[in-house]
Parts: sequence; structure tokens; C-alpha cells
Amino acid sequence: MRDDPSTRPQVTLVTGKHKRAERGHPWIYSNEVVLNAAAKALPAGSLVTVRNAEGKSLGVATFNPQPLITCRIITRDWSVKIDRGFLVKRLERALALRDRLFPEPYYRLVHAEADGLPGLIIDRYGTAVVCQLNTAWASAMEDDILAALDEVLAPEVVVFRNDSHARTLEGLPTETRFAKGSLSGPLEVRENGSTFLADLSEGQKTGWFFDQRANRAFAAGLAKGQRVLDCYSFTGGFGIQAAVAGASEVTLLDRSEPALALAKRAAELNGVADRCKILRGEVFETLEKLAEGKERFDVVILDPPAFVKSKKDLGPGSRGYRKMARLGAAVVAKGGVMLAASCSHNMPLDLFAEAVRHGVDDAGRVARILYTGYAGPDHPTHPALPESAYLKAQVLALD
Amino acid sequence: MRDDPSTRPQVTLVTGKHKRAERGHPWIYSNEVVLNAAAKALPAGSLVTVRNAEGKSLGVATFNPQPLITCRIITRDWSVKIDRGFLVKRLERALALRDRLFPEPYYRLVHAEADGLPGLIIDRYGTAVVCQLNTAWASAMEDDILAALDEVLAPEVVVFRNDSHARTLEGLPTETRFAKGSLSGPLEVRENGSTFLADLSEGQKTGWFFDQRANRAFAAGLAKGQRVLDCYSFTGGFGIQAAVAGASEVTLLDRSEPALALAKRAAELNGVADRCKILRGEVFETLEKLAEGKERFDVVILDPPAFVKSKKDLGPGSRGYRKMARLGAAVVAKGGVMLAASCSHNMPLDLFAEAVRHGVDDAGRVARILYTGYAGPDHPTHPALPESAYLKAQVLALD
Repeated sequence: MRDDPSTRPQVTLVTGKHKRAERGHPWIYSNEVVLNAAAKALPAGSLVTVRNAEGKSLGVATFNPQPLITCRIITRDWSVKIDRGFLVKRLERALALRDRLFPEPYYRLVHAEADGLPGLIIDRYGTAVVCQLNTAWASAMEDDILAALDEVLAPEVVVFRNDSHARTLEGLPTETRFAKGSLSGPLEVRENGSTFLADLSEGQKTGWFFDQRANRAFAAGLAKGQRVLDCYSFTGGFGIQAAVAGASEVTLLDRSEPALALAKRAAELNGVADRCKILRGEVFETLEKLAEGKERFDVVILDPPAFVKSKKDLGPGSRGYRKMARLGAAVVAKGGVMLAASCSHNMPLDLFAEAVRHGVDDAGRVARILYTGYAGPDHPTHPALPESAYLKAQVLALD
Repeated sequence: MRDDPSTRPQVTLVTGKHKRAERGHPWIYSNEVVLNAAAKALPAGSLVTVRNAEGKSLGVATFNPQPLITCRIITRDWSVKIDRGFLVKRLERALALRDRLFPEPYYRLVHAEADGLPGLIIDRYGTAVVCQLNTAWASAMEDDILAALDEVLAPEVVVFRNDSHARTLEGLPTETRFAKGSLSGPLEVRENGSTFLADLSEGQKTGWFFDQRANRAFAAGLAKGQRVLDCYSFTGGFGIQAAVAGASEVTLLDRSEPALALAKRAAELNGVADRCKILRGEVFETLEKLAEGKERFDVVILDPPAFVKSKKDLGPGSRGYRKMARLGAAVVAKGGVMLAASCSHNMPLDLFAEAVRHGVDDAGRVARILYTGYAGPDHPTHPALPESAYLKAQVLALD
């Protein structure tokens, strides 16, 4: 995509609607932009110079008239040319941070707005990367992103996992494909000293959830000599790390056959298969059966998919988290711990904590909160978008 | 202190004022209690059975008519006898949790309400413990607490650091004394593999701040090969752990001569004295001078004492945190990181994050938030008292 600051299209904000952006917020909503004929004629994914009603520049933004978020500011300096060279600099900045944070090349390399690249997600698995191009702009920049990645990382494999709900909101088609190279099966991922397997093209999201790294380490620290139940285990992140940390017995519970197959292989790779039990089933149903059978675990992990997919689901979603906490608490041994997580963007920490508290109370248990954690530092937060801290996890000790 | 459930004094709540307590909150405020002649005649520190206006028991509480928090519920079961044996059980429960969390006996052993012992703080330094008896009840239980500690831990030394502001609110005198044994100098504390020195009778609080353990580990993880500035270093917790993790140079900045003397000795104990520089001074003033001298650091730690000591200080306190962030950000090298902490009970995370964001902005820096941390798991939170999570720390990467 070509960008020339001097001839770049311009959009103007409605009078008085520039304050949030001036305070540093990177998003401008559709009702804040003057959507005149010229603006409506701009292709989705265009770069624009944003001006307030008095004509003062607020910076360069990506533009898409279709979704609620019409403009996403990419830099405050309108004179910056947003081209391949710009992408290279942002990728280098993102890489420098991860190099400092992690000893091995397995992490979220680019976390969208917080890394200065609106709607672009890149997860790194050694020499392979998985991209999500979640805005019309990122999608339009596809060739430049590939070229910039080649310049900075020279990955052997690039997968586009363009199957997110965000793309639908942006009016983009969904698809998954290899943009460079190919893979014939899952790849190894290293985390906190253990090895896992990720299916980059078929697994959930990009194949692995890097965001729980620190929370998995905390939970593993409580697992030595203990019986662990890992609910929604996916490919075994929490449970296998607990086994490696010395858990006496780990049960990995998930509904997905392919995820459990990878978990089983990962248990073998880490030499803990003899202490890992694979259990396929629905979590709520299975927890009820385990409780009836008087099964108890010293550590129970509850890391479900998002229950609150949109704001209107907040009521039922909250009740879902409450029920999950109740069913989970019922199988925690006296003095044991429970980790409850939510990856719902629309579920703020205080409401989640309340749902968990009520659920624990419904189970007749008395709790102390030991730990509250978020996504790890390879998922930075834009300071003006605290609500983008989507992941939250609490660890409670139960009497 | 003697307690007999069947003859225990009773207090009644004002009609309609039982709901918060019934939902699990452990505190009852003075305007919610019927303060009749009988209630007023009860000595501060008494145990009472609390009943709602209909006479239904809500449990056993500690009672003090003087402070805003009149009753603190200790158990929901009125028939439980609150005696030495009860204290022993609560101490054993607290100890079992810490045994599971930490490899060495250096931690907060009892964290008041969250460990089921209202107003009682106990920090453990190996064979010595420091107690804060912050409620009239805890103070009245002094002999039983000592006996229970002997039964559970048999500490060689018990220090009472009864010099907190909380005691003044409870109408209690302030004092510091050895209740058992004595010490002729500072003791060693172990944290995250390093050794420090704590002055249990003369140092700030109980001599060491166990609450920053996890945040210190996170900061140390970013320090390898870097220049570090540890502001409000106290006895060196952040800075020396950074040096042990491989920082090329660490400057420990504090106003307190005795704290810096212990930091210097700790640097020697850990074999990093050659990379640790001691700088005595006021933090704001020194940061301004460092900025004028174009000094830059890759990691800047800002862990000040509470700026917001009461709710009315929220305005000036917020401005203080904003200024701290501005002055700190000014000496962070390009691509460096800054850790900003607040231990103010009255400063919620969102307001603190906003103050830090504005300060960074004032310094003309662009930030990404990498990490948000709280007090470690030996400082559990009562689920109904989320506001008791007083400590918050943010780590930001600055362009």
C-alpha cells in the first residue's frame, strides 16, 4: 500500500468529539467522524489524516466506515509515512521487547494497538509465525506485512488465521491459509521450561494461548505432590506444567479430541505421561459427576472459552462463571486451591471476581484470594485502553 | 481472654443494616449497630454475637465502639468458642498455606481478616516473628496470641510493632517491644534466592516489605545487562535482586541512612557490591538532577511510601503519583522500562494507572503497559474486601 502524507485523504471529526483522541485514546467511533461523501468514498482500510473540527491534525489513522470503530490512530505525527519501512520499525520495536522478556522465541510478537499496529496480531513459534489481520487496514497491508516480517525475522512459515469475529465486524472475509511455506503437522512450543504441541492452522486461535504463561507458572508453583484437575485443558498448558512441577496426578479434561491428542503427546514429550490422565467430556457435566463420586482435587484449574462474547451476554455469561466456580469449588479438597479465568473482553475483573465469589459461596466454601493475574507482558496494554486487558485469572484457597 | 458462646454479649444491628454482612462482608460500621447502654458499656476488644434486627445470628465479631468499623466478624458460627485453641487452628491454617507457597520461612504468616484474624498481622523471619495487634480485640488477645504462636511455631523472638496508625483509630496506645526474646541487630531475610537484612524493631513497618516479592521477581527478569535505578530503595529489595539477576549497574536511592546502610551490607552478602551504588537523597529532587545531567537508566523502579494516607488526600496524592511518574519517565532510556507502585489503600488501581499514564505523557513518552501486579499470595485478600488489595504495581515500556 502506498502512503504519501502530503496527499493522504483527510477525515474531520464532529465538533467537540476530539477530546478522547487528544487525551491519547487510539479509537474514534463512527458517530464522531464527519461521514460526508468524500469520507464515504474512501475504501475500507485506507490511511487518513484525522483533523479536529478546527482543522488541527490528531495524527494518522486507519479508516473503515463499516464498524463502530471507524478510525484507529497509528501515530500522532501526520507527517510519518506509513509504509513497509514503518512496519519494519514497529516489528523491530516489538521484537526488542520480547527478546528482553523471554529466553526462547515463543510468544505473542505483536499485540495490535498496544504494539502500534491496529488490529494486527502475530504469534511466534520459533521459525513460524501466525498472523491475524483483524482490521481492513491490516488486511490491505498483507504484502507489506509479509515483506516486513521477512526483513525482521525471516520466518520459514507464515500462517494467516483470518477466521476471527473481529474480521466479520470489519466486513472482511474469513479464511485460514499458509502465506509462506507450509506445515504438515503441529509444531513444538516451549513455555516455562516445558514443551507443548500447537496446531497452527487447525487449533483454537493461533494454536496456543501464550497469554496464560505467568498464570500457569503460578499454578504450577502450588502443584508439587498434589492432585490436579485441569478443566478446559486444551492441549495441556496448565496441567502438564503442574505435572512437570511435581504434581502426583493430573487429570486433563476437555471436550476436544484433537486438543487432547496433542496434550497426550505433550505429556509424553515432558516425561510425565504416567502421571497424566486424559478425560474427554463436557466440563460442567463432568464436574457434577466427579462431585457425586466424592472425587476431590488439591488444585482445580478452570480456564474456559469466553462466556461473554458481547455486552448483551453479560448476564448469562456472569451466571455461567458463577456456576463454573460453584461446580469447581465442589471438587476442591479442604485447603486446596482453585484457579478461575475469564478471557471475555466484556467481563471486567470486578464483575468476574463477584461471580466467582458467589459461586464459591453457593458451594458453601470459604475462600481467600491469593492471586490476581492478567495476560503476560507479551500482551501489553495500551495505557488509554485499560479495557483491552481481556484476560483475568484469580487463584483462591478454599477451606 | 475467656469466651463462652452461651453467655457472650450480644449486639443488634439497626433494621435493614444486615445485608452487607449477610453477603459475606466482615465489617459492620458504627451507624449499623444499635449502640444502646449495654453496647456502650462493653469494653473495647470484646467478642460479641451479632444479630440482625429480627434476632437472627450473623456470627461472632470483635467489638469496639470507638472506630468507624465497630464489628469485625470472625466466624459465621456463633457457637464457636474464640479462645487459644481457635487461634491455634487459624495459625495452623495460615501456616499450611505459606508452607505450600514458599520454600523458606520468610513471609507474611497472618494477613488480618483474610486469614480470619481481624486486625492481626504476623510477619515471619525464620525463628523470629513480628506482630502488629491493630485492633482492640487483637490487643486484648495478646497473651493468647503469644501462647498460640508458641504452640504452632515456637518462635525464639516475638516483636510487637504496635506503632501503626490503625491502633490510634482503635484508641490503642502505640509501642514497640520484645514480647519474647530479643535481638541485638538486624536479621537475615531470604527472598527470590537473595539475602537481605531487616531491622525488626527499628525499620519501617515490620522491617521488610514481603508484599513486593512477585513484583521484584518480575522487575529482576528485565534487568540482565541493564542500568537500574531503584528509587525509594529502602534496604535494597528491588535493586539488589536486579543486580543478582545480572544488571550491569544498580543505583539505590533513598533518604534513609539506616536503610541504605542495610542495603549496602545486603549488596555485599549477595556478592554484588561492586555493581551497586548507594545514593542518599530525596527522590523527586534527585530525579530532577539526574534528568538535568542527562543520566538515563534502562530500568527505573518507583516504590514510594503511601502518598494517599486518607481519602481526603486523594487529590494531592494522585498529583504526587503523576509527578513521580513524570520525573521517573524522564530518566528512562529509550526502550527502557519503569515500575511504578502504590501502597495506598485509598488509591484504586484505575486512578493510579491514570496518574501514571498522565505523568508519562507529561514527560513526552509513549508507553505500553507490560504488567500489573499486586501484593503476593502471603497477603491474601478477603473476597468481600477487594479494596483491601492495597498494593498495586505497573511496569511500562517507554519508547
